[in-house]
Amino acid sequence: MDKLIAWMNGVYLPLEEVKIGYQDLGLLRGYAVFDFLRTNQRVPVFLEDYLQRFQESASALRLDMPLSEQAMRNVVRKLVELQPQAEMGLRFLLTGGYSEDAYTVQEPNLIISPVLIKPVPKTLPDAVKIITYPYERQLPQVKSIHYTMGILLQQEVKAANAFDVLYYSEQSVSEFPRSNVFIVNQQGILQTPANAVLKGVTRKHVIQAAANLLPVQEKNISLDELYSAAEIFITSTTKKIIPVTLVNDRVIGAGKPGLVASQLFDRLSAAEENYVQQFQW
Amino acid sequence: MDKLIAWMNGVYLPLEEVKIGYQDLGLLRGYAVFDFLRTNQRVPVFLEDYLQRFQESASALRLDMPLSEQAMRNVVRKLVELQPQAEMGLRFLLTGGYSEDAYTVQEPNLIISPVLIKPVPKTLPDAVKIITYPYERQLPQVKSIHYTMGILLQQEVKAANAFDVLYYSEQSVSEFPRSNVFIVNQQGILQTPANAVLKGVTRKHVIQAAANLLPVQEKNISLDELYSAAEIFITSTTKKIIPVTLVNDRVIGAGKPGLVASQLFDRLSAAEENYVQQFQW
Repeated sequence: MDKLIAWMNGVYLPLEEVKIGYQDLGLLRGYAVFDFLRTNQRVPVFLEDYLQRFQESASALRLDMPLSEQAMRNVVRKLVELQPQAEMGLRFLLTGGYSEDAYTVQEPNLIISPVLIKPVPKTLPDAVKIITYPYERQLPQVKSIHYTMGILLQQEVKAANAFDVLYYSEQSVSEFPRSNVFIVNQQGILQTPANAVLKGVTRKHVIQAAANLLPVQEKNISLDELYSAAEIFITSTTKKIIPVTLVNDRVIGAGKPGLVASQLFDRLSAAEENYVQQFQW
Repeated sequence: MDKLIAWMNGVYLPLEEVKIGYQDLGLLRGYAVFDFLRTNQRVPVFLEDYLQRFQESASALRLDMPLSEQAMRNVVRKLVELQPQAEMGLRFLLTGGYSEDAYTVQEPNLIISPVLIKPVPKTLPDAVKIITYPYERQLPQVKSIHYTMGILLQQEVKAANAFDVLYYSEQSVSEFPRSNVFIVNQQGILQTPANAVLKGVTRKHVIQAAANLLPVQEKNISLDELYSAAEIFITSTTKKIIPVTLVNDRVIGAGKPGLVASQLFDRLSAAEENYVQQFQW
């Protein structure tokens, strides 16, 4: 079996056959939440964290989750077994359902689908440049499908030859459209924004991995603090940790990937390996 | 022929068969714009205004419109002729297209579809209560599909036994999720917010209809000015004008539908009749 298989509202079917009716509130009104994890040797890495966040996003939008956590695990298990690849992404999408008046939430549509991803880095990736943009996501702690600004800014990201765009407000930098930011300040403290961010699962495990390595603070980080950091890095599900050495056109720290990023990458990878070894359905 | 007929990417088909593939950026990332008009005796009322705004929304999200304005008129004409009803809504939806990486805009999907609507009021509707909520839509001048907050607040609207929720910021009230607000102040001036609003087509024609009746200002309106207004009303494509006599629990003006709302309703209806009479494909 070579086809990617998805699950939609109780039915397993080839991914290419997954279609949603026009009256869905996700499509008509952007009313939907999602989440995204990846597998390692057919193990869904940090599965519990992603399922919990997906449930919290659904609750925030007052959407009823059609499956219990155990039923969700069973679907994930079968989907992972059905795919041709051992390493892939899984996307969970929960929408407001088919709504006759195109406004009132109905029984949600739930789709769980495989996503082909690039091989996950085994060592710290090359450093990248980022740009900044004044913006704050609405309901930032909810993983909604609302990525209008991030997609719109892709043109600016490409024009600047950058990897991604970091949002900021008057008070603090916050997050990238699809990932979190960390800095190591000049005092050797690891910091990551506390507010107006989606609490990334990789973010959580990086904070855990930093224990006994350096002090960690979740706090507001100003643009000035960002520029004067010793290290900056991005955390994401698919890339783990990516060092940042250029913000707009300002060089960060020594202008090369930092030691803390490298150490945390190894610790995070070890935590993932440990999870994979211990994992049981 | 009793079925509602839609148009999708060049094909006419029954509305119930309109489905969109899972990889569409509208569904996965909320990246889509739309517009909505209604017909009167099979004439699409103020068609040019809606087509122009739809094009402006598409341009703002850097989406290429697959049809010229003339080609769009031709599709609208055929759709209107194909429907069983003479009075209905037409929804235009343009999405970011099927995107393999679920992030990069591709060739857009365009769907034009009929929507069953309630009969349009022939006389000024009964007055309603509204509530207020501190919020500002992102990219407010773009008619994107992003209605998360409006739908989420439906519960508060119902709990307050209200008709709709009016957004406001520190500076000004702005708009309802799907319609505009006007006030008549104590000096007899018609006012409507200038900024952070979607420029409604009905809003435009109400402003025109007010000529020679009373002075009109597009300006910021504070919550205090809202509360102390002589009249408040809502403008919308499907309801034309709806008087508001309660904001949260405060009575507005004399607590009954105002004279200006009534006069403008009649003038707006006359402008629509005139448009319908003059209309040519």
